[in-house]
Parts: sequence; C-alpha cells; structure tokens
Amino acid sequence: MRGSLSSIVTFAPEIIATATLVVDSRGRSFTEITDEATRFVAESGAKDGALFVFMRHTSASLLIQENADPDVRRDLEAFFSRLVPDGDRLFVHNAEGDDDMPAHIRTALTAVNLSIPVREGRMVLGTWQGIYLWEHRKASHSRSVILHLIG
Amino acid sequence: MRGSLSSIVTFAPEIIATATLVVDSRGRSFTEITDEATRFVAESGAKDGALFVFMRHTSASLLIQENADPDVRRDLEAFFSRLVPDGDRLFVHNAEGDDDMPAHIRTALTAVNLSIPVREGRMVLGTWQGIYLWEHRKASHSRSVILHLIG
Amino acid sequence: MRGSLSSIVTFAPEIIATATLVVDSRGRSFTEITDEATRFVAESGAKDGALFVFMRHTSASLLIQENADPDVRRDLEAFFSRLVPDGDRLFVHNAEGDDDMPAHIRTALTAVNLSIPVREGRMVLGTWQGIYLWEHRKASHSRSVILHLIG
Repeated sequence: MRGSLSSIVTFAPEIIATATLVVDSRGRSFTEITDEATRFVAESGAKDGALFVFMRHTSASLLIQENADPDVRRDLEAFFSRLVPDGDRLFVHNAEGDDDMPAHIRTALTAVNLSIPVREGRMVLGTWQGIYLWEHRKASHSRSVILHLIG
Repeated sequence: MRGSLSSIVTFAPEIIATATLVVDSRGRSFTEITDEATRFVAESGAKDGALFVFMRHTSASLLIQENADPDVRRDLEAFFSRLVPDGDRLFVHNAEGDDDMPAHIRTALTAVNLSIPVREGRMVLGTWQGIYLWEHRKASHSRSVILHLIG
Repeated sequence: MRGSLSSIVTFAPEIIATATLVVDSRGRSFTEITDEATRFVAESGAKDGALFVFMRHTSASLLIQENADPDVRRDLEAFFSRLVPDGDRLFVHNAEGDDDMPAHIRTALTAVNLSIPVREGRMVLGTWQGIYLWEHRKASHSRSVILHLIG
C-alpha cells in the first residue's frame, strides 16, 4: 500500500444539527466563513462526525483554499476572470449583465457543497485551509448557506 | 463576523436510506433529476439530514445549476466544448472516439458527488437550483446514480 | 420521470468511524488510494452508509477517475498543465516556485472532498472508478487525508 492508515476510532451517531448562515457578499470577492463554521460546530454540541456546507445559489461558490497569503485569492480571481471572460460572445444567457453567465460557469467549475470532518468538537482542517464564499457576480448579494452536522 | 448565523436545530439520527436511480441519458446534454431526488427523499421517511448523490461513471457529471432559463445549460455546454475540444491532439486516450478523453476531463472539472441538506422531508435547494445529470459523451448512455440519505 | 428509481432500503445509523491516511506523493502525479479506502471501510465494521474523504491541503486534490487505461491520467495531467501554465505572468503568488499558484488553481478546479456510498461493507464504486490523490506540486509531499464513515 502507498499510504499509511492510522488506527480507526469509532463513535455512535447521536446528533444532526443544522443552521442557516446568511452572508452579505461584496461583488466578485472572497468572504471567509471559517469562524462562522467553527462557531456552528462548537455550539451544535456534536463531538465527532462531519460538517456539510451547502450554497443555495448558482452564481457563487464554496471553496476551501489557502488562508495565509491573500495573493492566492487575488490570483484565483485573476485566473478565473481570464478563463471565463465577462461578455464573451459565446454566451446567450446575459439577462442580468455580462457577468451573469460567467458566474454560472465559475460556479460549475468549483463547488456549491463541501464536507469537512469534525473531531472532538472542531473541524479537522489543514493548517493553511480556510473556508470561503466566492461571489462570482460583480454586485454584492445576500447569500444563504446551510450548515449541517452529522455526529 | 461577516455572516449572520441562525439558531441551531438538532435531531437524533434515525435512518439511512438508499436507492439506485438509472437514467437513460441523451448524448451530450443535461437530464434533470430533481423530481427523482425529491421523490426519494419523500419516500425514504427521513425528515432531517442530508442527501448524498453519487455518479458511478467517469464520463458524466452531477451538477446543481439554474433551472429557469435553458440558455444557461446551452451556454455551459458551449463553454465546456470550447474549453476541452473534441479530438484535441494533446490526448493519447481516444479508444472510444474523439469525445472520450474530453468526457473524462469535463467530469474531473465538475463533480461526481453531491451533498444536499434535507429539512422536514424536503431538500433545501435554492429557488433556482435544479439537480442535473450532465452526459459528456456524444452517444446516449444508461447511467447509474446512487441516492443516499442520512437523517 | 426520466429516471428509474429502485425500491428504497433503510438502516438504523450505528457508527461513525474515522482514521487518517498519510500518503507520500511523488511530484505532479496520481497515487491511487482505492485499496486504502476499501480497507478502512472493511475494518470500520460499518455495513451501510457513506464514506467521506477529505484532503487537508490546498495544492493537491482528490479525484475519482478511470482506473483502467493509465493514459487517462496522463491526458488529465497534460490538459491541466496546459490550462494552468507554470510560471504564468498573471500570478503574483510564487513564493514556493512557478508551480505554486498553478497547484492552488488546479486544486480549486477539482476537489478536496469526496463522498462515496457504502453498501454491505463495500464502497459502491462504478466498475471503472478508482480514487486518486492528485499531487499538483512538482516535488513530492507527505499528504494527510481524513477518512470518515457514517453508517
């Protein structure tokens, strides 16, 4: 085997906890929601299980990425802006402007749902991992995110 | 905090439900499976938890996207067709035709698994979110999708 | 309805199992971890539920892809290398070299978390599906992956 597997720890499932997180995004930018998720996990009373995060929109993403150097987010935005150009003549759907269809495509290329392991009441994120809401529209929006924990 | 977190609701885990959904796709198109997932959740008897959807193939995707304007799906297909050209000379793997390797890449760029929160016996999808099977091969296929609910 | 839904099978949730898998990756390549995941599921004692796999890093991905022809992985690597060029002048973040930011972008375009259904003590993967750790950095790394099963 290529990988080294640790011993297995087991628990009895005890709780399903859920809450809604509303985020007021700024246009085309990242809003970190790691603190909100951490608080939800702590207050849920669950100790061990998995957190599920779900975005109820089709033009904004959920992303786990580096939380240290803000240039990583700047470069992500620069790359995706180049890959999916606003106002590309390829697009028919532009009812809400030249960033409308690019926002849908950027969302399809990333994710609207995440699952994150929880141990002893805390998410088991890597040292450099933060959880971000990535607004793909140029205008600010109120975004609804569902947090769900099975533990 | 940037986000506004609602109060937390909790439940005791009671049920794991599973079923297989077989979808006869048409070539390179989207088949909406929201109704089938809704029916599965309703018939499972589970009230609160999470639905997991899993595609047992490597050349078709699962996608949550806008269900209102069909031009969104048209533009998604147009963008991915341009991004990953059929018959690109870069590709060595073309045993099943010039759409073979593009289908694998389009699948890698999107997703083969989804998780969706469930409250009071219904998926908590956004108003404009539908669940789609995205066939990336040019021919029709019979695709096997696993539905799983923990609630 | 487009799809054919099988009868629904239900179980009582009994166990949450977790372990850490450490993988010593080789630079910019795929390491299959299907055997390790299979072993984890078998040893966990869980029969029916879902396996969750989580990568604790932001420059390596988890991918479910074809396990038959190795050319598929070769072509995936070739495509992503062309799509996200090392040393692209667009990128500001290059503290760790010209493959630093491309590794973050390739990770954002794929996934750091997977969910896979489990029935009768085995993952319900498709015939041609393998689970891979995709190292996006050019150097080898020790990568920490969390395995979680709710069943």
